[in-house]
Formats: sequence, C-alpha cells, structure tokens
Amino acid sequence: MEITTRREFLKNAGAVALGMAAGAGVTSLIGCAPSPTPTALALASPTPVPQFPWTYAKLDPVTVAEKAYADYAKGACMYGTFSAIIGTLAQQVGAPFSTFPLDMMKYGKGGVYELGTLCGALNGAAAAISLVVDTKVAEQLIDELFAWYNTEALPNYKPKTPKYDIVASVSNSPLCHVSVTEWSNKSGFNAYSPQRAERCGWLAASVAKQTAELLNSQANGTFKRVHATPADVTTCLACHGQNSAVQNVHVTEASSCTLCHTDLSKHPVPIK
Amino acid sequence: MEITTRREFLKNAGAVALGMAAGAGVTSLIGCAPSPTPTALALASPTPVPQFPWTYAKLDPVTVAEKAYADYAKGACMYGTFSAIIGTLAQQVGAPFSTFPLDMMKYGKGGVYELGTLCGALNGAAAAISLVVDTKVAEQLIDELFAWYNTEALPNYKPKTPKYDIVASVSNSPLCHVSVTEWSNKSGFNAYSPQRAERCGWLAASVAKQTAELLNSQANGTFKRVHATPADVTTCLACHGQNSAVQNVHVTEASSCTLCHTDLSKHPVPIK
Repeated sequence: MEITTRREFLKNAGAVALGMAAGAGVTSLIGCAPSPTPTALALASPTPVPQFPWTYAKLDPVTVAEKAYADYAKGACMYGTFSAIIGTLAQQVGAPFSTFPLDMMKYGKGGVYELGTLCGALNGAAAAISLVVDTKVAEQLIDELFAWYNTEALPNYKPKTPKYDIVASVSNSPLCHVSVTEWSNKSGFNAYSPQRAERCGWLAASVAKQTAELLNSQANGTFKRVHATPADVTTCLACHGQNSAVQNVHVTEASSCTLCHTDLSKHPVPIK
Repeated sequence: MEITTRREFLKNAGAVALGMAAGAGVTSLIGCAPSPTPTALALASPTPVPQFPWTYAKLDPVTVAEKAYADYAKGACMYGTFSAIIGTLAQQVGAPFSTFPLDMMKYGKGGVYELGTLCGALNGAAAAISLVVDTKVAEQLIDELFAWYNTEALPNYKPKTPKYDIVASVSNSPLCHVSVTEWSNKSGFNAYSPQRAERCGWLAASVAKQTAELLNSQANGTFKRVHATPADVTTCLACHGQNSAVQNVHVTEASSCTLCHTDLSKHPVPIK
C-alpha cells in the first residue's frame, strides 16, 4: 500500500504541477515560473486515474460494522455497507479512497429506491469488494457472501447503542422484498415500522462485518468457500442450468428456487 | 460545467502543490523551494473530493447505446450501461468522470456474477444516474426506467454492427433471472447461447440509450413519468403496502406480484 500510495502521490503531484504551470495566473501560488511550453503542458491530465483495483488494507470488522450502522441512518443500506468499507479505508488510508463519491450509493436503498430488488446491503458490499480485488477474486467472495446471507439467521451483529432489540430471520433470498417480508412475518413488526428500519441498520452492520472478514481472509490467503448452494437449486439446474437439457435459466447458483416457484403441479415431469 | 471544472482544477492544483512542497526531495520537480512550513502543509489532502453530484452534460443517446454495446463485450451488462454514460462523460467532459474506477462495475454481470438478481444493465444505469443528479431526482428517473424496462418489449435498440438478429420480449420484472428466461422461452435460444449474450448486449445498449434520454429530459426540464405501476401491484399493496392492514411488503411499486406469487389458492381472502 505504501509503495502504491507514494507512486500515486508522485503521479498526482507531477501531473497537477504541469497543469498548474499551464494555467494563467496560477503560478504565483507556488512562486515559481513555468519552464515547459504551455502547448505541451495543456495535454497533461490534471487528475490521473488510480490503478485498478484499489489496494485494500485490512480493517477491523467491528469498526466497520459500527460505521455501517451509523451510515445506514445517513443513506440507508447500500450506502451503509459501501461507506463502511470504502469510507473506513478513506479515513485510514486516504487517497484514492477519499476521492470516491460515496453518496452515489444511496440508490440501492430498499432494493433500489424501495423497488424491492437486490438487498441494498448486499449491493453495496458487492460494489465495495469489486473496487478492491480483481474480478476473479470478487466473484468468489461475493458468491460466498450471498450464500451466507441466504442461509444465516440475520442480523447477527448487535450495534453498541441500539434503538431496539431485534430478532433474526433467515431470508432464503438476496432480494429485499423477500428478506424484509420474512423478517416482518417472524418478528410481527410491519415493513414500515421503526423496528424494521432498525433491523435493516443491524443487517447493514452484519453484512459489512462479514464483508470485512471475507476481505481480510483474502488478504491473509485463508479465504475458502463455506456456505453451499441450496439443494433445490442443484436439482433444478440439473435440467435448467448450463449444459443441461432445457438451459433456460441464466443462474449458476442462487437462493432457493421453490421460494418463488411454489406451484409445480404443472411441471412436465414430477418434482420430488 | 466549465465553472465547476475550473474550480475543481484550481482546488486540485492548490492542494497538490502544497502536498508536493511537503514531500522531501519532490521540490526539484518544479524547481522551486517550499515556502510554508512542512508541518502545516502535511495536513493538506493531495486529492480533494469533487463536489457531489457530478455535473451531467447532455449526451447523444445513439453514441451512448453504441458504447454500451461495445463495452458489454469488455465487462458485461452493468459495466456496459455504466461505462456508456460515465465513460462517455469522461471522454467528453474529462475530470472528475475520468477518475472513476469503471472496472468496479463488472460485478453486476448476470444479476451479480450470474446469481440472477437485479439485471446488471439496470444496476449500472441506476448507479450512473445516482452519480449525476441528486437523490430525489435519481429516485424519479430510476422509478421510470425500471417501469419502462418491466413493460416494454426489449431490446429495442439494434446496434450498427450486430452479430445476430434478436427478437424482443417483455420481462415483467427487473430481475436478470426472469428477464433472461422470458427471452429464452420466447426466442428458443438457450440462456448460455451466443444469441443470449448478444441479446444482453443489445439490452445494455437499449437501457443506456433510455437512461441518456431520461437524463437529457431532466437536464431540459421536460422529464415526466410515463410508465405506470402494474395493476396487480396496486391491488396487492392495498393490503400489503405502506399504511395498509398487513403492511408486510417493503415495496412501493415494482414488477408484477403474480409473476412469482402464482399460487394464491391458500390466500386468506379470495383474489380477483
């Protein structure tokens, strides 16, 4: 990290110095005259792009969880988990993390502005992972994170200063709509209650903590897949997945199929 | 945009100049001595954060669509639509768009690494919208984009140099799994065929073009909601939505409920 940061710093410094020298009336800021010609210097970009992926530094999972809970209150679930990882890196590492426009991640709230699609906590976590590891590693970590989310009783992290006590529930799905309704049905609190909002704050904290642990294990070279694909997914994909007879489902592994496909009475072959 | 860019440029220039002056051995790059004290200067951030949201400049929708189709081949659907908007702004406007780590958006592929959740083309479009307008406007544009996606026969943009001819289908859902299966069932091509990949390239182009048109209409002050919430959603949310009797569904409007909830024989009250 130190080498990369220093290299980036020098790249920034050099490029902006050239840009400054090209700008009329700006040289007095540093009290020296421009030596290269303005024409050549105008080609220099004032803001170079940092090397991708950005270099991860191991984070304390509890610190990350507490920040996710606090940031959930500022911008909801996707912002909460993304800011917990990338915002903490901004605080602890600085650039390039400090340049990221965190506010853009508010769109994932409630499965994208309460449309109930992908859980925002997962969307933010996946985006954060994808910024700090390459795509092959990102896919492995995200697959594990989603499988964990589908099968564990969540939330499993209680913030240090909670507003309410919150019961945990298993979602069987990465979708906001399913996850919230399962919790509402179990807890007895409605989907628009302050308890539900609190539950999603705890959930953002739980997902952010799990994400930090996954990234730390990857950094340590100890990451391994733990949570398996649900059994009914394996059964269904035997006929509907890649290289099967029907091949009409573009899903490699996911949440339980029978959560939505509840009526299989018309299925062309009997389902066990 | 010019004023913001210039202000950002001067901010960058000032901050990095201070950073450079603080760095040992770096002053020779610009051939002048540091005048402020190193202690004070060490507090200056070398890379300041651009003001949020980043300032949108109107884009040609066909240029955007063609870039989405080309970029789909490099990083799939989410990367395709996001890069079509933000990458084109990087080419046409420069900083801060040119500093954005576009590669991070590859995670949305196939509903997040082929897990079949939120369509990556929509996830990328929503992220791009959220970077260039404030949250209230973003919510309106994204609601309209998702309603359009659910109800229109897509893809509706044919790239200039396509690999195959592609039929259109109505997804009734923003989910990758549903959208791809509906298209596979209609077209007869399997979900892992090169024709399906081509369809998703066209789809990324169609979604990116629609997104550019929405952002342009917002910039012109002419945006209005066109696509309505499906009728069965309104019926279901009368009992399950906010301020209703049951209130266990955290969704304001979305794709057809009966697409998944096919078996309503056990519903406590008869469903018309």
